[in-house]
Amino acid sequence: MSVRKPQVLKGFRDFTPESMLLRQRVIAILRSVFERHGYEPIDTPTLEYLEVLTGKAGENEKLMYGFRDHGDREVGLRYDLTIPLARFVAMHQNDIVLPFKRYHIAPVWRAENPQRGRFREFWQCDADIVGSASMLADAESISVLVDALREVNLTAAVVSINHRKLLQALAEFAGVPRDRAGIAFRAIDKLGKIGPSGVRAELVAAGSTEASATGVLDLITATGTADDLLDEADRTLECVEGGGAAVAELRNLVSFIEDLGVPRKSWKVDLSLARGIDYYTGPVYEAIVDEPKIGSVAGAGRYDGLIGTFLGRDIPATGMSLGFERILEVVREFDLLPVPRSVVDVFVPVFAETLATAAHTARELRRHGMATDQSVQLNKNLGDQLKYAARRGIPLAVIIGNEELDQGIARVRNLGTGAQHDVPLAVLAAEMSMLMENYRERGDSEVPESMNDRTDDGN
Amino acid sequence: MSVRKPQVLKGFRDFTPESMLLRQRVIAILRSVFERHGYEPIDTPTLEYLEVLTGKAGENEKLMYGFRDHGDREVGLRYDLTIPLARFVAMHQNDIVLPFKRYHIAPVWRAENPQRGRFREFWQCDADIVGSASMLADAESISVLVDALREVNLTAAVVSINHRKLLQALAEFAGVPRDRAGIAFRAIDKLGKIGPSGVRAELVAAGSTEASATGVLDLITATGTADDLLDEADRTLECVEGGGAAVAELRNLVSFIEDLGVPRKSWKVDLSLARGIDYYTGPVYEAIVDEPKIGSVAGAGRYDGLIGTFLGRDIPATGMSLGFERILEVVREFDLLPVPRSVVDVFVPVFAETLATAAHTARELRRHGMATDQSVQLNKNLGDQLKYAARRGIPLAVIIGNEELDQGIARVRNLGTGAQHDVPLAVLAAEMSMLMENYRERGDSEVPESMNDRTDDGN
Repeated sequence: MSVRKPQVLKGFRDFTPESMLLRQRVIAILRSVFERHGYEPIDTPTLEYLEVLTGKAGENEKLMYGFRDHGDREVGLRYDLTIPLARFVAMHQNDIVLPFKRYHIAPVWRAENPQRGRFREFWQCDADIVGSASMLADAESISVLVDALREVNLTAAVVSINHRKLLQALAEFAGVPRDRAGIAFRAIDKLGKIGPSGVRAELVAAGSTEASATGVLDLITATGTADDLLDEADRTLECVEGGGAAVAELRNLVSFIEDLGVPRKSWKVDLSLARGIDYYTGPVYEAIVDEPKIGSVAGAGRYDGLIGTFLGRDIPATGMSLGFERILEVVREFDLLPVPRSVVDVFVPVFAETLATAAHTARELRRHGMATDQSVQLNKNLGDQLKYAARRGIPLAVIIGNEELDQGIARVRNLGTGAQHDVPLAVLAAEMSMLMENYRERGDSEVPESMNDRTDDGN
Repeated sequence: MSVRKPQVLKGFRDFTPESMLLRQRVIAILRSVFERHGYEPIDTPTLEYLEVLTGKAGENEKLMYGFRDHGDREVGLRYDLTIPLARFVAMHQNDIVLPFKRYHIAPVWRAENPQRGRFREFWQCDADIVGSASMLADAESISVLVDALREVNLTAAVVSINHRKLLQALAEFAGVPRDRAGIAFRAIDKLGKIGPSGVRAELVAAGSTEASATGVLDLITATGTADDLLDEADRTLECVEGGGAAVAELRNLVSFIEDLGVPRKSWKVDLSLARGIDYYTGPVYEAIVDEPKIGSVAGAGRYDGLIGTFLGRDIPATGMSLGFERILEVVREFDLLPVPRSVVDVFVPVFAETLATAAHTARELRRHGMATDQSVQLNKNLGDQLKYAARRGIPLAVIIGNEELDQGIARVRNLGTGAQHDVPLAVLAAEMSMLMENYRERGDSEVPESMNDRTDDGN
């Protein structure tokens, strides 16, 4: 037999049942948060015309999985979920109602060099509001983001908030020429990494005077309440074009965030936050976890010009993208959301003589809401069948052999402890429901990895 | 502004919120059926080495989306979920416990000519049992399939069952040379379309004598119980190599299906069923809906040799693939699973003076399990905000203006009927929970498409 080599591409992953349980749980939580806030789901094709994908991505183009399809069209795998949203809105403007609140949880592809926590195929979770220029939309985004992170028990996350146009004004104030403003943004954004002196050096190298660089540093290292910082920004930037307007929008945003009741320790104004993507036009924000040192878990901002690149006229939009894979990694590492080892609650071993009764019992258990795995290993003895179930991490077994059938009972066995007791078949489903509830409350801890260490192995 | 043309590739689709609600509902139902029967989820990469994908697919290769990636590797988008499962099992044999029961719900890609109901990107729902050669595994597959179709209200589906080796014996019996056995399978499979005389003609053309063609036709058109048909098959094929063994396996399968309590009208033996895929080695089955004339909605069978093409030694496997897109189409066409027009239960309009109270109320409603959309349209009057909510299909609104706030009440409005009444803020969440329950029970019918036809437009 000629054998194909079983392998997966670098940067791509298989997900075993155990890893899927946590992925599905986190996805379910995020979906529920988004829907609870009025966001509706959409999906878009994984393959798009390359021209659709590459419009504004600029240097991302070389990270795109692009190729020619059977019809010689240039196509590519989607790179993010924001460009497809912009394309979607332009195409479906008559089917949707503005403001359009949508979420999209789906994989994207980037031909980056894989490294720890960075993959070529990974999932994104986006929630955006299209069609509102109001800072209330940005405030709601931040409120939803905080809720989402709390629901996955990332309660220590803090959302840093800044404004793209405030940064532009800051670059202007620093005396950095417009065509090098990006260099200034990146320098300012590195404050936490390279410190004030590092930022100063980069600003001066980009064309800033020492004096104006000092002014920038005074502002971005200032401490105090959001109001203090915005007052300071006003004083520094009042004479710079766009500066006053940006500060006013941030003030407006902050007041809405307070109205929405976002917990005060979950957000802060951070005038050094830049965010890389070049299509942002208004507030930008990023969720960061400092304790433990996790870093950024979500980022977002307003992009009022992007949909116009498809539509020819602008539609304002703002929203967030959660770093799903990063969040998952943290949730797993710090055990923030314990999940059972198996989706299965109950295992029903089978014997030729009592198969029909076992099947009937399994059906009853399912009807009572229990995930019930009926064995297919008729050729194995009870001990081997139970070992199999324990290896799968199934917590309970219901055993009906000839003897039990004669007595109208089932043996209920805890596959973790080995404890077992008899239950009349007539009340089995009710009793099992109760046991499962207890088990789910206790959590997974009492089920051992394997039953090999026990001697009372059934039969 | 240079504008990108907003378009999607032929055979690819956007899913609007309305279509997503039904997709998500059907996926949730199928997941729940699979998990309830002890199947666990996996996922695999969308991109695989082309060599992994093309091993046995044969002529499917030209329908594969294949290309060279940045590392000059030949890669392709997965064509189905069965080959990836075989590759997965070969790679993870030490991480999984056999028998391995897994389900996989995910998109696949085929560069076919798109036509009504056939797409280039579409979802499959597979559930398989790997590592059991027992007919009990096949019987369970059929039982799960019947359950899954019932749960999406396709109660009229009937699973036809045959055996690949019985067909081979039949071709042998017909005198068709081995290298043309495939032609005989296909001819037999067309019985429903071309009738007995058509099948006879094709069999004779393939090398059958008139007499043996008659024998084949007698068998595949025979009527009666499963036992009758299998007795008849035994008589016809007892002298043909493999025939007796195939009939014996089918007998075994039928007896297990009965033990498992699969409803008798949900399955039948159909000796003319072939199924196209060439890796089947045992029982094959297909779920067909005749009334209304829907055709095949799921198919499956045993493929004991496929995993060996990766592993070098065979591991038996059997399972099913549900035609997700077909099922969805039928569910939508015949309204088998009504879904609400919106994920949102309650709309909360906003006014500058009462924003904080509205936000607090929205949070309370969410805490009580209601999906609550708080408006971001501070610049719109109440009538316009309510019109927006009605266009989105949201059933209820909770209105808190200055007046209501002063009185400590909210106005609760049915956005379908326009009826409204006042509720003290203190009991609002409880009252709304009750209303939503009633609404969900009544269904969607009382909410009109638009509120334009009403005159009492708020304010």
